[in-house]
Amino acid sequence: MSKDSTQSNTTTDNPASNTITFALAQSHFLVGDISANAEKMRTLAIEARAQGADVIVFPELSLLGYPPQDLLLRPNLSGRIKAALANLSDIEDIVMIVGYPHVDHHGTFNSAAILHNGHQKGFYHKQFLPNYGVFDERRYFDKGRNQVLFDYKGVTIGLLICEDLWEKNLITELKEQGADLVISLNASPFERDKQEMRKTMLTKRSSENKLPILYVNAVGGQDDLVFDGGSMAVQADGVIAHEASRFMSQLLLTTLDVATTTFDTQAKAPLSLSRESEMYQALVVGLRDYVNHSGFTGVIIGLSGGIDSALTLCIAVDALGADKVYAVMMPYEYTSKISLEDAQAQARRLNVSYTVCPIFDAVEGIRHTLAPLFNKSPADTTEENIQARARGVILMALSNKFGHLVITTGNKSELAVGYSTLYGDMAGGFDVLKDVYKTQVYDLASYRNRLEDTPVIPERVITRPPSAELRADQTDQDSLPDYEILDGILSLYIDEDMGYQDIIDKGFEAELVAKTIAMVNNSEFKRVQSPIGTKISHKAFGRERRYPLVNKWSLKD
Amino acid sequence: MSKDSTQSNTTTDNPASNTITFALAQSHFLVGDISANAEKMRTLAIEARAQGADVIVFPELSLLGYPPQDLLLRPNLSGRIKAALANLSDIEDIVMIVGYPHVDHHGTFNSAAILHNGHQKGFYHKQFLPNYGVFDERRYFDKGRNQVLFDYKGVTIGLLICEDLWEKNLITELKEQGADLVISLNASPFERDKQEMRKTMLTKRSSENKLPILYVNAVGGQDDLVFDGGSMAVQADGVIAHEASRFMSQLLLTTLDVATTTFDTQAKAPLSLSRESEMYQALVVGLRDYVNHSGFTGVIIGLSGGIDSALTLCIAVDALGADKVYAVMMPYEYTSKISLEDAQAQARRLNVSYTVCPIFDAVEGIRHTLAPLFNKSPADTTEENIQARARGVILMALSNKFGHLVITTGNKSELAVGYSTLYGDMAGGFDVLKDVYKTQVYDLASYRNRLEDTPVIPERVITRPPSAELRADQTDQDSLPDYEILDGILSLYIDEDMGYQDIIDKGFEAELVAKTIAMVNNSEFKRVQSPIGTKISHKAFGRERRYPLVNKWSLKD
Repeated sequence: MSKDSTQSNTTTDNPASNTITFALAQSHFLVGDISANAEKMRTLAIEARAQGADVIVFPELSLLGYPPQDLLLRPNLSGRIKAALANLSDIEDIVMIVGYPHVDHHGTFNSAAILHNGHQKGFYHKQFLPNYGVFDERRYFDKGRNQVLFDYKGVTIGLLICEDLWEKNLITELKEQGADLVISLNASPFERDKQEMRKTMLTKRSSENKLPILYVNAVGGQDDLVFDGGSMAVQADGVIAHEASRFMSQLLLTTLDVATTTFDTQAKAPLSLSRESEMYQALVVGLRDYVNHSGFTGVIIGLSGGIDSALTLCIAVDALGADKVYAVMMPYEYTSKISLEDAQAQARRLNVSYTVCPIFDAVEGIRHTLAPLFNKSPADTTEENIQARARGVILMALSNKFGHLVITTGNKSELAVGYSTLYGDMAGGFDVLKDVYKTQVYDLASYRNRLEDTPVIPERVITRPPSAELRADQTDQDSLPDYEILDGILSLYIDEDMGYQDIIDKGFEAELVAKTIAMVNNSEFKRVQSPIGTKISHKAFGRERRYPLVNKWSLKD
Repeated sequence: MSKDSTQSNTTTDNPASNTITFALAQSHFLVGDISANAEKMRTLAIEARAQGADVIVFPELSLLGYPPQDLLLRPNLSGRIKAALANLSDIEDIVMIVGYPHVDHHGTFNSAAILHNGHQKGFYHKQFLPNYGVFDERRYFDKGRNQVLFDYKGVTIGLLICEDLWEKNLITELKEQGADLVISLNASPFERDKQEMRKTMLTKRSSENKLPILYVNAVGGQDDLVFDGGSMAVQADGVIAHEASRFMSQLLLTTLDVATTTFDTQAKAPLSLSRESEMYQALVVGLRDYVNHSGFTGVIIGLSGGIDSALTLCIAVDALGADKVYAVMMPYEYTSKISLEDAQAQARRLNVSYTVCPIFDAVEGIRHTLAPLFNKSPADTTEENIQARARGVILMALSNKFGHLVITTGNKSELAVGYSTLYGDMAGGFDVLKDVYKTQVYDLASYRNRLEDTPVIPERVITRPPSAELRADQTDQDSLPDYEILDGILSLYIDEDMGYQDIIDKGFEAELVAKTIAMVNNSEFKRVQSPIGTKISHKAFGRERRYPLVNKWSLKD
């Protein structure tokens, strides 16, 4: 809640008042749930009004939720939206700026409506429609062509929606047309360092144009995306006057002095989050909202004693509470004693339900079934995959029987090079570490351990060499380069879209670069069937990276 | 090959010649394989020239293949394309119209280059970029803004690329600017009735503008898309003078009389394909090209004795030859005698390798492993899923051991309502019937049987009630409405994007409509992990239908 001490000076709808109080409704709006979203807007507007707000601003497309994808093509969208807007029209004495999809005979637009005392005073259509990365807005929306400004208590307010403000020109045009203040509605998904990027952009836009800006962001998880909040009020000189919390709902109030068009200053800004802290929180929120909004009663996870499942377990407990997390250790012939000990220690320290379920019978049954067809051919990765798939079958059976969601523990490094088994360790509905490189898994494990006096992940889990334990004395580095090197190459190739020669020029060995790129390109068939997971990087696997399966792009030339 | 008898009158590069012979290079260009695609263009150009062609036209983006997806973002794209175009510059005495991605400081364009005797005479940038359905062109391309016309032997030729011609205006503008002929480069994927739609459009555009049109399409499979060829030469009065074969490569030659700008007429047009025939051929080509271009030596398929796997087996044999198809029957307790007999009969009639692999040991091993955790809870769908997943594990193990691709047999009706087991019958790399409703499966089975004196699918497979045989006396209709009704509702909801009330107004029972829509909406988590399969409908699951997983869209209001 805002620490604003001036808000009591404000009276609503009083033209003589020399301040305007704005409420930034940083909140979670569920995709598709139009009537519930409208109800939430009503509640927030009444609450904001009670706290003295004159104007409440909701995030981009919040009436429908973001990103709605092909729900925007449903034939009854327009009727539902109109009904919801009509239902909001009885809220008086507060201006509501509502993000919604606008459908009329000109097309479908990503819009902001200005609602006041039962009237729609105007609407703005987003002009820059992002169609890169995770965004597909030109699939659905037509481009707005007009600036929109409106006057409130003598202040001329211009509206922009998300991408509009990342482009240099629109805010300048608003300024030229007389804007005293700009309000920006956003549904801006989290990725590493995103809040810093937003601040840099906001400071530049406001100071270049000498315009104060209100930046309202959504919050919460939607499938693979997490909206991280961090809404802001920025002074005309680029100084950030208010910043909302990250990753949680907040009704942030800020008061503008009409004469000077400056905001009051936040008594105590939220702590800036470390890189590990914001990644960790994104992973927690992404899992929490997926599980809760999908209606699962809890999650079930296969513990191996290794670091990936250890970190995933922490995140699950932080997201859902220990009573909703079920851990199963599924040992087989190659499971070491320390793996069993460490898995048990993890579960115990986090106080989750823990079961040991040896898979000898399952694996032997499968091998017996296959024996006549395999005809004594020598063991190879087939037999390793059988173990992983037996575990997948066991976890899925437990999920089917008891209704918990299977969460998987594969990290981005594994998924990139295909070091995982389809329908085995990849079997499940949500891959918590999907966008987390192995080296970042270590960073996050250490980060999480530092939060408590007794580390929740046993130190040995962090220090022992990683192994899939699918054959005797196996380690990951039998098949892969050291993770420091592997992740270095992968992040250049995937996150930065760099080519073979440029990666070598960064100091990596040519043969290793070629081998790594080939592994990435040859694993697309696995990724296309992988569970979703929270995006935290600049380029996540999934909707953000779209590669053909049949693909003869050569590595080198 | 063209039956054109006038082509011998044509001499290349002779300005006095009163005809121009065009070669439409309906061919398959592999995505990403730039240098091989350029080599193929060279071969085709030399062949066309030898046959008397003055001009050869390649499909849209053929130098890179279509759709290249995020390969268009690779940093070394531009260099590779320039090198490939330079390598084509030594081909003389024939004009080459080449589809390629054009990268310069203005942006990236979907373009056509005019190459002649070592010079690039000009280029055209596509103006209408489709960004709906399976298309994401605005993710990658900038919009062209200029018409391009060039003169050849006194004929003024305008260029268009695919979507440009579906829009009414561009060809009219070309006409106004003096075009005598329009050449259209296409990568137009197959869907039901598509060739008829193309003909209707071409006839309309040509006759409205009194302009002859050359329409060149790609051919072959790329992941879930099949390009079906059917390139055409259309007279200025809308009559189709030449039509290339569907679903196969062809170098179609047609000669234009310069004085009258009319094409010679094809001696014998290809047979028009029935709806079943074109669907069947699309499924064959889609599977064939996926398997061959992915480098698999063959495919392995689980036969159940039912109609889905029977039809899939036929398609696999027609696509790859019987010697590359491996069938496995995996009976369990609920497998009926007639299923065993029918599976064997199917395999025998098609002459494929056939193995029976009972899964009792595998299922019992898994059940033993789970017994202590299940604690004598009553059997439910969990036990059915275990059987399906045991089969999935067996098939994947055979695939891993012997290198064949597992193909799955799930149809669109099942996938729509979630009547399938993730990691069970859904385990595999390619789902042949993914976009084929169950009622269409029957149509295609009957169609395929009619092609030979002895039906390849035993009649009993078609007439018996469908069953998953996962429990005693089970039939599909225990859980689902009759397929005629189910498919009726599904095609309105999915393919036509109709809403609840509109579907009821079409004559379906309200409760059944609600139940069906709910099943579709609740199965998105399965579809997101399903294998790819060939698109044959107006709206296929996969890249063409993008729904949120967490999705609170209510059915009814």
